[in-house]
Amino acid sequence: MRLGEINMSKDTMDYNEFDSLFYPNSIAVVGASPVPGNAGATMLSMMLNHGFPGKLYPVNRSARDVLGLKAYSSIKEIPGPVDYALLQVPAEKAIDAISDCSDKGVKFVSLLAAGFGESEDKTGKELEQDLAKAACQRGIRFLGPNCMGFYCPKSHVTFGNGFPRESGPVGVMCQSGGNSVQLVRSGTPRGIRFSKIISFGNAADINEAELMEYFARDPDTKLIIAYIEGVRDGQRFFRALKDATLSKPVIVLKGGQSDTGCATIQSHTGSLAGSNHIWSSLLKQTGAIQAYNIDECIDIASACLFLKRPASRKIAVMGFGGAASVQAADDCCRAGLILPLIADPIKQELQKFIPTAGNIFRNPLDVTRIYFDPVKLGQAATILGGWSDIDILLLHIRVELTDASMVEAKTLEPTVQGFIDAARETGKPTVLAIYSVYSDSSYQGYLKAQQMCMEAGITCYPSVYRAANAIGKTLKYYKKR
Amino acid sequence: MRLGEINMSKDTMDYNEFDSLFYPNSIAVVGASPVPGNAGATMLSMMLNHGFPGKLYPVNRSARDVLGLKAYSSIKEIPGPVDYALLQVPAEKAIDAISDCSDKGVKFVSLLAAGFGESEDKTGKELEQDLAKAACQRGIRFLGPNCMGFYCPKSHVTFGNGFPRESGPVGVMCQSGGNSVQLVRSGTPRGIRFSKIISFGNAADINEAELMEYFARDPDTKLIIAYIEGVRDGQRFFRALKDATLSKPVIVLKGGQSDTGCATIQSHTGSLAGSNHIWSSLLKQTGAIQAYNIDECIDIASACLFLKRPASRKIAVMGFGGAASVQAADDCCRAGLILPLIADPIKQELQKFIPTAGNIFRNPLDVTRIYFDPVKLGQAATILGGWSDIDILLLHIRVELTDASMVEAKTLEPTVQGFIDAARETGKPTVLAIYSVYSDSSYQGYLKAQQMCMEAGITCYPSVYRAANAIGKTLKYYKKR
Repeated sequence: MRLGEINMSKDTMDYNEFDSLFYPNSIAVVGASPVPGNAGATMLSMMLNHGFPGKLYPVNRSARDVLGLKAYSSIKEIPGPVDYALLQVPAEKAIDAISDCSDKGVKFVSLLAAGFGESEDKTGKELEQDLAKAACQRGIRFLGPNCMGFYCPKSHVTFGNGFPRESGPVGVMCQSGGNSVQLVRSGTPRGIRFSKIISFGNAADINEAELMEYFARDPDTKLIIAYIEGVRDGQRFFRALKDATLSKPVIVLKGGQSDTGCATIQSHTGSLAGSNHIWSSLLKQTGAIQAYNIDECIDIASACLFLKRPASRKIAVMGFGGAASVQAADDCCRAGLILPLIADPIKQELQKFIPTAGNIFRNPLDVTRIYFDPVKLGQAATILGGWSDIDILLLHIRVELTDASMVEAKTLEPTVQGFIDAARETGKPTVLAIYSVYSDSSYQGYLKAQQMCMEAGITCYPSVYRAANAIGKTLKYYKKR
Repeated sequence: MRLGEINMSKDTMDYNEFDSLFYPNSIAVVGASPVPGNAGATMLSMMLNHGFPGKLYPVNRSARDVLGLKAYSSIKEIPGPVDYALLQVPAEKAIDAISDCSDKGVKFVSLLAAGFGESEDKTGKELEQDLAKAACQRGIRFLGPNCMGFYCPKSHVTFGNGFPRESGPVGVMCQSGGNSVQLVRSGTPRGIRFSKIISFGNAADINEAELMEYFARDPDTKLIIAYIEGVRDGQRFFRALKDATLSKPVIVLKGGQSDTGCATIQSHTGSLAGSNHIWSSLLKQTGAIQAYNIDECIDIASACLFLKRPASRKIAVMGFGGAASVQAADDCCRAGLILPLIADPIKQELQKFIPTAGNIFRNPLDVTRIYFDPVKLGQAATILGGWSDIDILLLHIRVELTDASMVEAKTLEPTVQGFIDAARETGKPTVLAIYSVYSDSSYQGYLKAQQMCMEAGITCYPSVYRAANAIGKTLKYYKKR
């Protein structure tokens, strides 16, 4: 289906038609210029780096070319069709640009400029209304204003440098460009890949409700992360959200959980943020998973994607240190997980090769005295993971302990490998928590360990607290479903 | 005052006498051996590395020397006086070792072995009682069992390798050896130094109440961190704690905040953990600052030590990103901080050199568009810090943003320097939060920035959330006092 065939009425917009918007064959970047640091040129260069296979047209009144691409003085002068236009023009020129796009037959636009509904003065707010009206009249759908456009690895459209080329199961709808980038930066090293990230800013046209409906039906999207500052169409959004959670996990980060946060939002995307209390109870009703910040979004997404669905909340925990085990127990209980008493046969099997003194044969299991022995640690993890009373295995590693670090002792990687093998052998849903990282060498070890986990499809957290919290929230979602 | 003069009756123990215990001239390590990995030899080597200036005596039945130090077959055969003995002997030999120490005239002992009150069997618990009785009868005071002894930089006694040689204002009493080490490892790069860290394990003799009384009166200690799993003498402890908080901040981490955590404690230090609810309300009454984990202990200690006492909860926040500013506002409000509306003259001054579009001139102030301009960032921080309506300045830095990182752009260090200069120039209590660190180069930049802050006496956090939380808790302490 080509763009020309799309029915632009919001209420009857068809899923497949919306989907095709994300696969343009030709993109114009209006406002790209050869001036160093120009944002339009940066967009073009990102698209080139990402291997966009279609046509890229810089539009600039005076320049002949931008980044070696032939530039056009107006979008209307571009010879072939233009499927998608990125408008990098000042706010006051936006309506003219939309009008030119319409003349050219462009149906889908992202408007990057700020200076609309989020402004303090009336002009910006009125401008936004006029813009929405103009676009609607001319049959143009747009993201923004005050957005970054979208990232879709399958179509090689991007708004960030170094974003992964591989597609993945996470669909993101995000009112903030910065948070979109943060999700990619923090998710990538943890193995999270995206179907599409849609930065939709002030949501003057395409809004949260439509995007939620879209992602709910998008077969490429298995999990949705939504960063919302306010809603344009609350009723429809909550209905869409409720529907979406029936088929896939939806993690919602509501920006503005405080009065000052809400006030900040007015200057960020101009949204009416709404009371935190109301939001929280509405979200609860929909079955969405609420996150407090971006880190928590990624933590929960990791658990949803990489932790096989556990049969129960019963968890076995193993790591180093008595107090660390006490803390791990507190962290897990806080998250609603259950630590059954260790079964005698399991204990006896462990005690065959782990000294009794200085270790704690409970759940959490403290195996401090075999800290530097990856082989025994792997054996212990396999035995614990094989325990039939538990359905989740959490293995926690302190990189720096008393007088040496696992990196210096070269035992971190073999220990992680042993844990990965134990997870595979027992088939038990397993997570790792790797912490106590205070030096550059420890951090390098951490990154390497994280990569090993990622390649093995096992999720890895920077603390037991964050691991337990993510597992707990994910299990609550499964339970509701 | 020499050790021989100490009155050992617990109830009349004098502060100065207790103090002198931490400054031994001679130390015997009973159970040190030349066998690789021997824990006693490790203790000796740590003491040597730390420059202990007094006499060190390995005690071993068969070895002639350990680490080049002449070994004695019994502590009684050591020619000179022994002020302090570290007993690295199995549980069942502890009473004999105590008896030998008594014969030798040793008054102060640390008993490292586990296998006492924390054991599951009755034998261990009985052994601990017998041990306490034996020591009391013979006038010996001891730390432990199941402990690491103590670290006192001034006397060059240590239980960890690479612990700082410099003394500092933080006194730690800790039922866990692992947590003691964790406090040093995490506190050191953030500029925290210690007067003494006392690992007191099962507290069969010297207990939490005495140590709290001691630290309350210790002039070298300006702030106390206590990791407590359970109390031996609850009434006296809470009285001591209440007294201590009148003269210095006391941060208490109560291990076992859940049922499973409490059960774990029984196998860790054998303490009766007590209900979290009761603990929490008792701690509240004393004016102590409650922490949830070790990271929070260090976060709060940093705020207490490095943040000049602010005149109010009013804070100005500056950083990069609209959504990051929304989140920062949420984080600050959650912590009980107040973000006044930005004053017009401050706003006008900022707008003289910061473009209006794409930035948010509120509080939090979002200065995304000057992200790579350390000079302007420093100017902005100075203007914001000079704003008379606020008493705290929080500057947050995202190391990795859209298409490049501050490390790659070489702007991180100058930006941090500019912020440090702004803090100095305005004299406003200032903290930095540095986050968005996902690569090795970013982490190196982070460590360097952290060091710059440390050297400038400014506290630096890995997130706005943690910064705000620590400031909030510290202010609540000041308010109560």
